[in-house]
Amino acid sequence: MGAVARAMKNMGLTQLVIVEPQREVLDSEARARAAGALDILRQATVTRSFDQAIADCGLVIGASARLRTIPWPTVDPHQCAQLVVQTAATQKIALVFGREDTGLTNEELEKCHWHVHIPANPEYSSLNLGAAVQVITYEIRMAELAQQGQTVQVTADHPLATAAELEGLFTHLETTLQQIGFYDPENPRQLFRRLRRLFNRAQLDKMEMNILRGILAAVDDKTSAS
Amino acid sequence: MGAVARAMKNMGLTQLVIVEPQREVLDSEARARAAGALDILRQATVTRSFDQAIADCGLVIGASARLRTIPWPTVDPHQCAQLVVQTAATQKIALVFGREDTGLTNEELEKCHWHVHIPANPEYSSLNLGAAVQVITYEIRMAELAQQGQTVQVTADHPLATAAELEGLFTHLETTLQQIGFYDPENPRQLFRRLRRLFNRAQLDKMEMNILRGILAAVDDKTSAS
Repeated sequence: MGAVARAMKNMGLTQLVIVEPQREVLDSEARARAAGALDILRQATVTRSFDQAIADCGLVIGASARLRTIPWPTVDPHQCAQLVVQTAATQKIALVFGREDTGLTNEELEKCHWHVHIPANPEYSSLNLGAAVQVITYEIRMAELAQQGQTVQVTADHPLATAAELEGLFTHLETTLQQIGFYDPENPRQLFRRLRRLFNRAQLDKMEMNILRGILAAVDDKTSAS
Repeated sequence: MGAVARAMKNMGLTQLVIVEPQREVLDSEARARAAGALDILRQATVTRSFDQAIADCGLVIGASARLRTIPWPTVDPHQCAQLVVQTAATQKIALVFGREDTGLTNEELEKCHWHVHIPANPEYSSLNLGAAVQVITYEIRMAELAQQGQTVQVTADHPLATAAELEGLFTHLETTLQQIGFYDPENPRQLFRRLRRLFNRAQLDKMEMNILRGILAAVDDKTSAS
């Protein structure tokens, strides 16, 4: 339960409902594993039955590791998260996870609208409860962020070098390489094509451009003095 | 380490490398947490240094929870998995995770081509190591499954330079820049951090690496002759 609380809080979820806990919710191991997510455990609701836990929910999705005799509508964690964010504005949603050892019963699984299945390695597919909650809640956070138009963005600290500045670099490079005798006029095209491809691909920013021009200038100084 | 091994095996990954472990890799807690993934722990390679661990890898992706002074090319776990499956056919890849408490050092992060950031709840963003590995490996499995049946071809004409070759380039660069007087021992770190970031981002292939080493050698010849 501690690992579950931590995964939830890491991914921005808060409402934990525990059905018929077999041990004290706030025991020492759970506290230790919850770390900074102890508030989630403290605020957890304890219910006596599965039905009570899901009673006011408009969408119930149950985690299932098993192939079942009657096929149920099943989504992967990514699709599950799409369902959740599409529905969350208007409905209360339950994501239901089973017991650490045996999962959800057939009866419980049949009360779910959807099953969510984590497509683990068939040779070793038993995720522990905390790991399963981590994966499902991670996808929900990713879907939420995507919906808000937020993604992981790299904020360059300098604007990118312009095409003209890049041409300046290539001209300088050609001159300097000629001066140090690296440039082979017999077969220059392949070399410069490769250098162009490299520095274009790198998408140099202005500061990096300045560093490279500075290095070339230092080489020029040193070699023209000789 | 037990939780890491379990997450890996659940998601179909097998090769674990542990750098300078602070405790016995197969101690009782690790064994308990690994459960059915004990084979991953048993087969784990232990290395003495970060450099040694990544030496033969063409793509190095480091998990980072921090915002850094110099922005590094950063992907979310989903994008990370795309990079991994696109590259895995031709290159050895390292996914690097830091210490449970402090993560990767700046020096280690600067040896990565990319950083992967799990966009956790800003109010409680500290995933434990096992949880972070679970999320990243889950996305890789999803990407692998999505890719099955497709033939994605990497069109690079030369294999990527390895991390060890990159270190060789940086060492050479430092020596040469010192020789031509470009290197300022008063303030070297920012310069080299930028050069590292640039050439990591470019994901140099072996031919490009040879060209750059060749240019440095030509500068060396010219300036030592003077």
